[in-house]
Amino acid sequence: MSMTRTESDPMSTASPDLHVYDTTLRDGAQQEGLNLSVADKLVIARQLDELGVGFIEGGWPGANPKDTEFFARAQRELSLRNATLAAFGATRRAGSSADADPLVRALLDSGASVVTLVAKSHARHVEQALRTTLEENLAMIRDTVTFLRGEGRRVFLDAEHFFDGYRLDRAYALECVRAAAESGAEVVALCDTNGGMLPAQVADVVRDVIDLTGARVGIHCHNDTGCAVANSMAAVDAGATHVQGTVNGYGERTGNANILTLVSNLQIKQGMPLLEPARLREATRISHAISEVTNVPPYSRQPYVGASAFAHKAGLHASALKVDPDLYQHTDPALVGNSMRTLVSDMAGRASIELKAKEMGVDLTDQSELVAAVLAEVKELELRGWTFDAADASFELLLRKHLGQGVSYFDVESWRVITDARDAGEATSEATVKLTAGGTRHVATGEGNGPVNALDHALRVALIGVYPELDKLELVDFRVRILDASHGTDAITRVLIETSDGTTTWQTVGVAPNIVEASWRALVDGITYGLTRQGVPAR
Amino acid sequence: MSMTRTESDPMSTASPDLHVYDTTLRDGAQQEGLNLSVADKLVIARQLDELGVGFIEGGWPGANPKDTEFFARAQRELSLRNATLAAFGATRRAGSSADADPLVRALLDSGASVVTLVAKSHARHVEQALRTTLEENLAMIRDTVTFLRGEGRRVFLDAEHFFDGYRLDRAYALECVRAAAESGAEVVALCDTNGGMLPAQVADVVRDVIDLTGARVGIHCHNDTGCAVANSMAAVDAGATHVQGTVNGYGERTGNANILTLVSNLQIKQGMPLLEPARLREATRISHAISEVTNVPPYSRQPYVGASAFAHKAGLHASALKVDPDLYQHTDPALVGNSMRTLVSDMAGRASIELKAKEMGVDLTDQSELVAAVLAEVKELELRGWTFDAADASFELLLRKHLGQGVSYFDVESWRVITDARDAGEATSEATVKLTAGGTRHVATGEGNGPVNALDHALRVALIGVYPELDKLELVDFRVRILDASHGTDAITRVLIETSDGTTTWQTVGVAPNIVEASWRALVDGITYGLTRQGVPAR
Repeated sequence: MSMTRTESDPMSTASPDLHVYDTTLRDGAQQEGLNLSVADKLVIARQLDELGVGFIEGGWPGANPKDTEFFARAQRELSLRNATLAAFGATRRAGSSADADPLVRALLDSGASVVTLVAKSHARHVEQALRTTLEENLAMIRDTVTFLRGEGRRVFLDAEHFFDGYRLDRAYALECVRAAAESGAEVVALCDTNGGMLPAQVADVVRDVIDLTGARVGIHCHNDTGCAVANSMAAVDAGATHVQGTVNGYGERTGNANILTLVSNLQIKQGMPLLEPARLREATRISHAISEVTNVPPYSRQPYVGASAFAHKAGLHASALKVDPDLYQHTDPALVGNSMRTLVSDMAGRASIELKAKEMGVDLTDQSELVAAVLAEVKELELRGWTFDAADASFELLLRKHLGQGVSYFDVESWRVITDARDAGEATSEATVKLTAGGTRHVATGEGNGPVNALDHALRVALIGVYPELDKLELVDFRVRILDASHGTDAITRVLIETSDGTTTWQTVGVAPNIVEASWRALVDGITYGLTRQGVPAR
Repeated sequence: MSMTRTESDPMSTASPDLHVYDTTLRDGAQQEGLNLSVADKLVIARQLDELGVGFIEGGWPGANPKDTEFFARAQRELSLRNATLAAFGATRRAGSSADADPLVRALLDSGASVVTLVAKSHARHVEQALRTTLEENLAMIRDTVTFLRGEGRRVFLDAEHFFDGYRLDRAYALECVRAAAESGAEVVALCDTNGGMLPAQVADVVRDVIDLTGARVGIHCHNDTGCAVANSMAAVDAGATHVQGTVNGYGERTGNANILTLVSNLQIKQGMPLLEPARLREATRISHAISEVTNVPPYSRQPYVGASAFAHKAGLHASALKVDPDLYQHTDPALVGNSMRTLVSDMAGRASIELKAKEMGVDLTDQSELVAAVLAEVKELELRGWTFDAADASFELLLRKHLGQGVSYFDVESWRVITDARDAGEATSEATVKLTAGGTRHVATGEGNGPVNALDHALRVALIGVYPELDKLELVDFRVRILDASHGTDAITRVLIETSDGTTTWQTVGVAPNIVEASWRALVDGITYGLTRQGVPAR
């Protein structure tokens, strides 16, 4: 594992002059309804590393068993190419010493080379929330920074409630910054913890702090006035050289500064080389991939990376768009991996179908009728809730069907799943599948800890004699999204299933009012695709 | 009907010095997926009037039959107390005269006392999109404004693509503003049509335009850089006295400036008296009411009015929140009709639990043993995948159990769901529930289009005789999250269910390896909570 950033890596963060510090895994995880497992956090950390952020704040080891486990697993499993992992934690408790504080110890034990300490810098917070003296709070900052520096860690300090504190007692707020900087903190990030600031205020305070303390200043904003991105940019303009934010603007209340918007603005609009251009072009994909992990539906109006960010309605714009897209776009969507869509035009759809076919080795350039038929079916299915963005394999099966290359490996007569529970005992599921394959009718039963699991087992039992190739295939992921939730359980269900053959994985989709039926369709596609890609003939 | 604002109305817009101009019905309706009927528009117009905006842009009469009808019906049916209705339209066509232009005529016929004309102010747009000369475009502005003023209309002018045009050809952009102002346009709104501007740029341009033309300047921003609100505020700071925006930030691509955020910032943070305080306190309700009409799900992270805008999760904060809420809130949520909520989560400490109990009317201040027991159970359950921050009702049931106030309405003996499908037909689900309630054993069967739907029906059939109060309850939302997805269908499933009694809704959670069992648990909690909150005794 490599937790420290490899300076010589040609793909590493392009500009070390401005820290891009991501706190999705810590402050982003404070969002209502967002609950990340350790496995989720590891997946997101890899995505953030691919985006090219400089620092990934992983969590608060010691305060939270899940975060302790995250750092332990990160040491073993996470191999970061760009980013440095940071552990978040508080300054030592009042009246103790840093080296004896178990939470400070846990920061060392995390193995992270950067420690970001949160400290109070607001006089009333010190007295009323920490219940200690102003002087002791300064000592807590000095001791903890000094101790961690002595242990070889880089230390950043998050000055909590800084802007409100500055307004209440400017001298004390500045004293906190000095205490941290003089003890060896590399950055003091000024936090608008309550999120109530406006850009001009932020700029004034940042400028004043830099002038009076000489510290390297960072900025951490929340979006309670809808200005988190503008506030962060105002801080950078005033001299801050470290910006904190979260992917998709996740965070408590209204969320944190959206790091994707912020970086795109700084890099594209203001010419600051923060990320390798090739990495920034992954922003749209990574935004959506992380949405899948958090299960927070992607916000289509999100700047730069949202599905609607470069979508143009028909009418006034459509004709001019063809003449000169630059007249109607504030930037080239390709820079962030997004694309222009005209909501009535089929151009984008046709192109992606041709592209997809090309990936499968089929040239559709001169087959505009076939492309139109595929497009019509895709549009019809998407209207009914299907999505092929995250289900390449289902799309390929659909395309093969239109090309006359579809293979039907088995004919299903019926399937049934029974799920039952007695008293307060655990429920069990039992599935029966009746189908014809290899010229014979098969009736098979499978058990499982859920209906999909049971159906998966039954389907394999029924088919394995005819298609021993199935032995390699394994169902590795299963996701459910309820569409049109206003109708409660009458809603449409979309199931995405990921299947693996040990080396490759593929995604399939099923949509139906019944969640079990949607799962069944995705399962059947997953197995069909697995056999297809091995070139297995129908038997 | 009263389309003109009654100046003497004591509830009318408090500050006539700055126009609050809403374009939800026109530019907001450009949002992808948003489709408003005439009836929808009338409902929204009434809500906007209740909010107290000064102007409501109703649409483009003549260009769009639905908008023509809207203005016709507005004349008959809409009685506005605060707002003035504005009709949107373009300047006359090139090479014609304003009074002979049918679209200009339609603006007069709309009956709106304010007409907002959109005009090009970007030299390349004039030449490439309008396909006319720069001089003719100026004449189109002058003629149309003059004609409409002569017909007794107030005229505002939207200078489209102004900021990009100003960058390309500043002199021409300024000439367009002068042409409008000198012909009698009351306001020239500078439009960042492509949404690519940043606050400092907007401020510079607005200042320059006011200095050089003396026109009354307005601002119309889009959110493509995530800065629509900050850009609008920068414009006001630079002298603009007319702000345009949409409720909930609806609009094409990333949306328009969110008028609720913008007005809240200007009024609460900067002390500008734009709306009567009593009307601003309706903002949260109106935001949600309009979401119901548009059928765009409310964005919980929306500043000021979002469901999460004043929700606190971190244990860190909750202890201090108890002492002094002002330390952790950027403003009083009551000012916009919102309220503070504390969320229980694995970050939570004892203080969050006490605070949550207080919201339920239970004082746990001196019951530290009980709080510790609740906290221990919450942490244990959250480790196993439960989440209470989106399931207030399940948390309340857990708390009541610890308080000895738990009510067991029925004893479940067993349940079973069968889901089956023949050939390619639609799957159906049938559930059987066996339970004891009111001293009698009940066996009931329910059908549904999915296992949860079927279980819900069966449970109601079994219980309705003993608990007729269940008749009011309805299952309104159902969400599924697969945890630790790396294990495929062996993963843990978390189901969140929302139940309603017609006036209130509540959330419950169920977790189990089996998706059906998880759903069952959340269903049972949802019904138990519904009976508990009605004060129904166990029978």
